[in-house]
Amino acid sequence: MKSAIEAIYHIRSDARAIQERARAVAIEQSVEMPIAAIEDEHVLGEIVGEVHAIRDLGGGIFEVRIGLNAQTTGDDAGQLMNMLFGNASLLDDVILHDAVLPREMLDAFGGPRQGFAELKARVGASRRALTCSALKPQGLPSAALAELARRFAEGGVDYIKDDHGLADQAYSPFAERVAAVSEALRSGGYKTRYVPSLTGDLETLRRALGIARSAGIDTVMLAPMICGPSNMHALARDNPDIAILAHPALGGAARIAPPLLIGKLFRLFGAGAVVFPNFGGRFGYSRQTCKALARAALDDWGGVRPAVPVPAGGMKLQRIPELLDFYGDEVMLLIGGDLLAARERLVEETRAFMASVERYAYG
Amino acid sequence: MKSAIEAIYHIRSDARAIQERARAVAIEQSVEMPIAAIEDEHVLGEIVGEVHAIRDLGGGIFEVRIGLNAQTTGDDAGQLMNMLFGNASLLDDVILHDAVLPREMLDAFGGPRQGFAELKARVGASRRALTCSALKPQGLPSAALAELARRFAEGGVDYIKDDHGLADQAYSPFAERVAAVSEALRSGGYKTRYVPSLTGDLETLRRALGIARSAGIDTVMLAPMICGPSNMHALARDNPDIAILAHPALGGAARIAPPLLIGKLFRLFGAGAVVFPNFGGRFGYSRQTCKALARAALDDWGGVRPAVPVPAGGMKLQRIPELLDFYGDEVMLLIGGDLLAARERLVEETRAFMASVERYAYG
Repeated sequence: MKSAIEAIYHIRSDARAIQERARAVAIEQSVEMPIAAIEDEHVLGEIVGEVHAIRDLGGGIFEVRIGLNAQTTGDDAGQLMNMLFGNASLLDDVILHDAVLPREMLDAFGGPRQGFAELKARVGASRRALTCSALKPQGLPSAALAELARRFAEGGVDYIKDDHGLADQAYSPFAERVAAVSEALRSGGYKTRYVPSLTGDLETLRRALGIARSAGIDTVMLAPMICGPSNMHALARDNPDIAILAHPALGGAARIAPPLLIGKLFRLFGAGAVVFPNFGGRFGYSRQTCKALARAALDDWGGVRPAVPVPAGGMKLQRIPELLDFYGDEVMLLIGGDLLAARERLVEETRAFMASVERYAYG
Repeated sequence: MKSAIEAIYHIRSDARAIQERARAVAIEQSVEMPIAAIEDEHVLGEIVGEVHAIRDLGGGIFEVRIGLNAQTTGDDAGQLMNMLFGNASLLDDVILHDAVLPREMLDAFGGPRQGFAELKARVGASRRALTCSALKPQGLPSAALAELARRFAEGGVDYIKDDHGLADQAYSPFAERVAAVSEALRSGGYKTRYVPSLTGDLETLRRALGIARSAGIDTVMLAPMICGPSNMHALARDNPDIAILAHPALGGAARIAPPLLIGKLFRLFGAGAVVFPNFGGRFGYSRQTCKALARAALDDWGGVRPAVPVPAGGMKLQRIPELLDFYGDEVMLLIGGDLLAARERLVEETRAFMASVERYAYG
């Protein structure tokens, strides 16, 4: 098989049954029909998934490497997800662990147009880690969110993202919110970037991106598992000057390994920064998962720009040195609730956040 | 809280911790920040998720019913998914089991424009169950797929869907495939409907739908968890004469209960027929799950049209009476591989499929 994708699954199975199970998954993820019923030589030789290797990982789990023809994806992000895990996601003994993609596919998708280096350059952060906070709770009027943003900016944070619950709701309609927050940052002369969350179908996303662009915004947030990976990729491709922060909502806990889904695939489809639940917060990702995810987002990968890992989900100020020890400065630290909990001291707490990150970098 | 959504989760927890865990999920799925940091009375009273009830289901699992303000969704399908399960999907102790949606939301989404009754009427099936088969394997050229379709139609099947692996690939480009298959069915004078699979971003989907419509096609297939639910909903809303068959690819095995995801939500967002893995085939869904899914697709639900349940995934001809006993005639039986395995006897096997369904209905 030429130009193959290698999909790597973890399959729960008896040792006796694993050969057959691996073969069944290879068929499920390629031709999805009895091999005996296929007459076409091209299909048999080039399209039917091939079991490359099976390795016993212990505990009844096997690593199974399956070759899939790259032509099956038609260079569409959704169809790549479909080929990697469409039907297998419905099997409860299979996890998609990793994928090796051919160089031509990396080039075709292109990854982030604005990656880590560009996100650093925008806010003038050279050696230090990037910082981010979040506008919330949803339900506040736009003016209140704008005032929160002003205070975060006054504290010097690099990026302020919308809570991923903010959409186009009656209490803070998208266009009104974007206008109010942008104006608050502009009139204060802050270099802080506002990162609005775009939601809805692709036409709605495009309209929202146009509104954001008109307000001078150059970074937006999308949840690829909600808007559909093909739609995020279309926006990345058509707006090379806009950086995309990907949110993991609806990404599932464990069926697709987070380093692959969030670290690699979101990056490949155009995200320059990837939010994920950090270890020791409200979610169950392990240190090992978080490290692997950060590496997947940053590692050399053909010509694909690195994406910034953005650990989040219940982070607290006192953990900053620990997190920088763990991630190095190749990270954007996202602290939302813990800053908001400071209420009237929000500006001071945000300053403390920045000071802690700068002290770590510059001593 | 007015006009509430009730999200019903199954949470794995100690009995001692469940109150706190339920409260944490209610916060995670609404404001996602410490309650103590919220000053706004409207947010505290109307937006923060409310734990309505907790019930011990035994075995360390609790049913938790949480009220969420319907305004938080802005009547967008993706945002509804986000509010129901966005961040909670990243928690490995929470399953989204069901959701009760307010009548205004049902009206706003509108469900299928072409539901079960319309899908029956199109092929003149009154009392009997509907039938469907699948074009595959991918990798065949368009002409070979068209010839397969002709033989299925000669056998009398009602609907022929693309394999969900068929996209816009070099070996059978979408426009070429649609032209070839439609022409094969038209020139034979068959009433059989071809259901092409649409893939890609929303613009690509719209373009593909236009190509299909020009070829006289009135039913298409989409995988909402790949294309994004908002995009499927946009197509359903803007093309009220087109029926949509929803495919469960990437729907996950067990994190969102299939009766809710496939039976209710896909229906709500506009699918008039919903494919799902039947019990006793290649997938692990239980009889109970399949029955609940079929009921969810068919039951009275405000003014939302019923969707046809389409059990699939390794069905065989000899199971037809059993499946009709189980589902009644409110079903579209989808048999793909088992017919294709007949090879040169495909027309006869398809006739046997139809005869079995008709005999069951008309004696």
